Amino acid sequence: MNNDKSDHKPTRRRFLARAAAAAAVTPVVSTALAKGALDGNRCDAHAPLAQGTRAEPFYGRHQGGIATAMHRNTYFMAFNMSSSDRSQLIALLKSWTAAAAEITQRNAHSPSDTDESAVPHDSGAATGLLPSRLTVTFGFGPTLFEKNGEDRFGIAKLRPAALADLPRFPGDQLIPERCGGDLSVQASADDPQVAEYAIRRMASAAYGIADIAWAQSGFCSIAKPKETPRNTMGFKDGTMNIRTDDADTMQRFVWVGDEGPAWMQCGSYMVIRPIRIALEHWDRMKLGFQEQTVGRHKNSGAPIGKVHEFDDLDLDAVDSEGNPLIAENAHARLAAPASNDGAQILRKGYSYDNGVARFAERWPPWRQAVTFDSGLLFQCYQRDPRTGFTRMFEKMSRFDMLNQFTTHIGSGVFACPPGAKEGEYIGQALFSA
Amino acid sequence: MNNDKSDHKPTRRRFLARAAAAAAVTPVVSTALAKGALDGNRCDAHAPLAQGTRAEPFYGRHQGGIATAMHRNTYFMAFNMSSSDRSQLIALLKSWTAAAAEITQRNAHSPSDTDESAVPHDSGAATGLLPSRLTVTFGFGPTLFEKNGEDRFGIAKLRPAALADLPRFPGDQLIPERCGGDLSVQASADDPQVAEYAIRRMASAAYGIADIAWAQSGFCSIAKPKETPRNTMGFKDGTMNIRTDDADTMQRFVWVGDEGPAWMQCGSYMVIRPIRIALEHWDRMKLGFQEQTVGRHKNSGAPIGKVHEFDDLDLDAVDSEGNPLIAENAHARLAAPASNDGAQILRKGYSYDNGVARFAERWPPWRQAVTFDSGLLFQCYQRDPRTGFTRMFEKMSRFDMLNQFTTHIGSGVFACPPGAKEGEYIGQALFSA
Repeated sequence: MNNDKSDHKPTRRRFLARAAAAAAVTPVVSTALAKGALDGNRCDAHAPLAQGTRAEPFYGRHQGGIATAMHRNTYFMAFNMSSSDRSQLIALLKSWTAAAAEITQRNAHSPSDTDESAVPHDSGAATGLLPSRLTVTFGFGPTLFEKNGEDRFGIAKLRPAALADLPRFPGDQLIPERCGGDLSVQASADDPQVAEYAIRRMASAAYGIADIAWAQSGFCSIAKPKETPRNTMGFKDGTMNIRTDDADTMQRFVWVGDEGPAWMQCGSYMVIRPIRIALEHWDRMKLGFQEQTVGRHKNSGAPIGKVHEFDDLDLDAVDSEGNPLIAENAHARLAAPASNDGAQILRKGYSYDNGVARFAERWPPWRQAVTFDSGLLFQCYQRDPRTGFTRMFEKMSRFDMLNQFTTHIGSGVFACPPGAKEGEYIGQALFSA
Repeated sequence: MNNDKSDHKPTRRRFLARAAAAAAVTPVVSTALAKGALDGNRCDAHAPLAQGTRAEPFYGRHQGGIATAMHRNTYFMAFNMSSSDRSQLIALLKSWTAAAAEITQRNAHSPSDTDESAVPHDSGAATGLLPSRLTVTFGFGPTLFEKNGEDRFGIAKLRPAALADLPRFPGDQLIPERCGGDLSVQASADDPQVAEYAIRRMASAAYGIADIAWAQSGFCSIAKPKETPRNTMGFKDGTMNIRTDDADTMQRFVWVGDEGPAWMQCGSYMVIRPIRIALEHWDRMKLGFQEQTVGRHKNSGAPIGKVHEFDDLDLDAVDSEGNPLIAENAHARLAAPASNDGAQILRKGYSYDNGVARFAERWPPWRQAVTFDSGLLFQCYQRDPRTGFTRMFEKMSRFDMLNQFTTHIGSGVFACPPGAKEGEYIGQALFSA
């Protein structure tokens, strides 16, 4: 795999080198951006994360896996339609819906296939395992609506404006084999084997109708329920996240309302970005530099200069010399709603680890040509990516000090329709519109 | 990645095709092999598997992770020495020992690094997480003793005869980047993030002394303690395994005794084989065929014709027409001690899943060019691989009906020395011999 960073924009590299050097010595001078007023809807809360064995409901107003507390394991898979037959697409969605309704509600005592003359209806790998809070979340990519100018399924005119293609962001090193997809399926559970089982079931149902495009599994661990998980960089990840039990904020920022097409109301748009992290590099940075890069203390998760994780992120705070405590290009500052006209997204950040990868060229120039193929399987849900992820990341992709350590290697955007009622299939309203 | 099976031996393919066809219709005729007497040391027991949060001891007679109950998550990493300096190798082993002793005993309340001017001593990704039964197991590959005819570390004459290079087995499709290694490190825990944290710590300690050669993570799930886990093929995996609490059998088949060099006594030899499984293909086989291939019923795990998982595997049993119930080329028959002059190994089978891979050619000829890069991270421990894995797999690699669905894509053999006492480092006796 050749994924070296040799075509990084020199200007970006210079900027980052300068910014990093400045930050490592003394926080850079505050700017208008840094002094922006705090937004009233800022939410100093965290995504609840639980580990459990029980079943999550499948049918409902929203799809599972969005407002559901973070799972310990996830498995994302994107598909491209190999069939151009609308009825086959509908048949697949019906089959996926039925399978998801079944497997999310199965338990350790669910009966197994016993007919020796028939192909078992699933792998059986979860026989005896607990439901483990399994959720399965489906999405529709832009190419499902129109691909190479072709309206294969008669839904081009129903494509929501919000399902815009993501722009190319500065620093993007996207690997085509980790991008896009007509359809997305994500199985999340508190047991890795249950998640694998579920995604296999979905891939099997797609056989002959849709091909696997790409896939990525991930994990997320906490010791105590509702704790903010740490990512592989060792920092708490999601301190400022939307609280999924805050219905008003969820409605304002996550769920599609009547501004969207009828078939998407109560749904949400998902952006997924596998982000490789140069962990070998990061692990050799001094604690103080790591903290200035993130804008928070590593152990407590508190904003720089504060003590507790949920203490206010005060972007105006300065040290005795008048320099901002949270650096101008610190990740926490740039991600804060106050820096983004109040924009918020519901983050779902899983760590991923594919072992190691070989790079044709070495960047940064360590002596090892073999590096971790691991990082963050970043995902976020929002009411409109144009005012959510894209709005926030346009600035972050240029200025965030974390960019020295991170590379976006994949990308996708999907319209995740509302949940189904019993007897309906996921996305039904799109095809009866 | 080009890993198609186009260079499979035609004779093997024809044999398998015939055998499979025969088995699918009616079990093939029994042979002398099938009628071999049952061995007195056959052990109809299973590997205990537990999921927990407590700490496993690090110091002891044996290294952790061998007789330890299967973990839910594992992370294997092989390294090649970049230094040829014996003192650096010893320094690395001391540093790994100290790190493993520390991180296996840490807990959610262990203190974090607080010196901002220093590089943190680890990633911090496990801060707040529980010990999760973490074990770290170290091994020495053949190339540590001699590489390209060179005795880099002055230990060539101490290489045990049992640490023989594995032969090339029929059907091997080994990818060089998933083979071998001078050193092996395996972190196993009941939490994926703890395992990842541990292996990162080890890789970091190796920086400048040893390079990462390859890595593979895996998982294994059960609902109830001591249950036999199912693999991704949906079958119980390990029914006939050695019971790790059976000290006599462990000593006879797993732990090195006084036949080995002094520095290996109470250690064990580990063989690791990442085995890709054509799960898409397997999932489309009829239940009866799956069961004949394995030689056991899928749901119960019982031998064909029996009811309970631990019912005797009677290789002489025949149906009303005199045909063997367990087919001649069934996996369970070929793996049974009775078919291998009583040979036994301690299996540690984790499932692995790297998402999907792209194949330059398609085999078997489905329409999807993208297939699961997943299967079994097979591992076994034994007193001598020549009479353990190699003895058993020489026959299985030629006849096992499962071979139609499995491809060995990686391989390694490592001498895992005994555990260390407090104050010692792992492998110390090798370097003071």
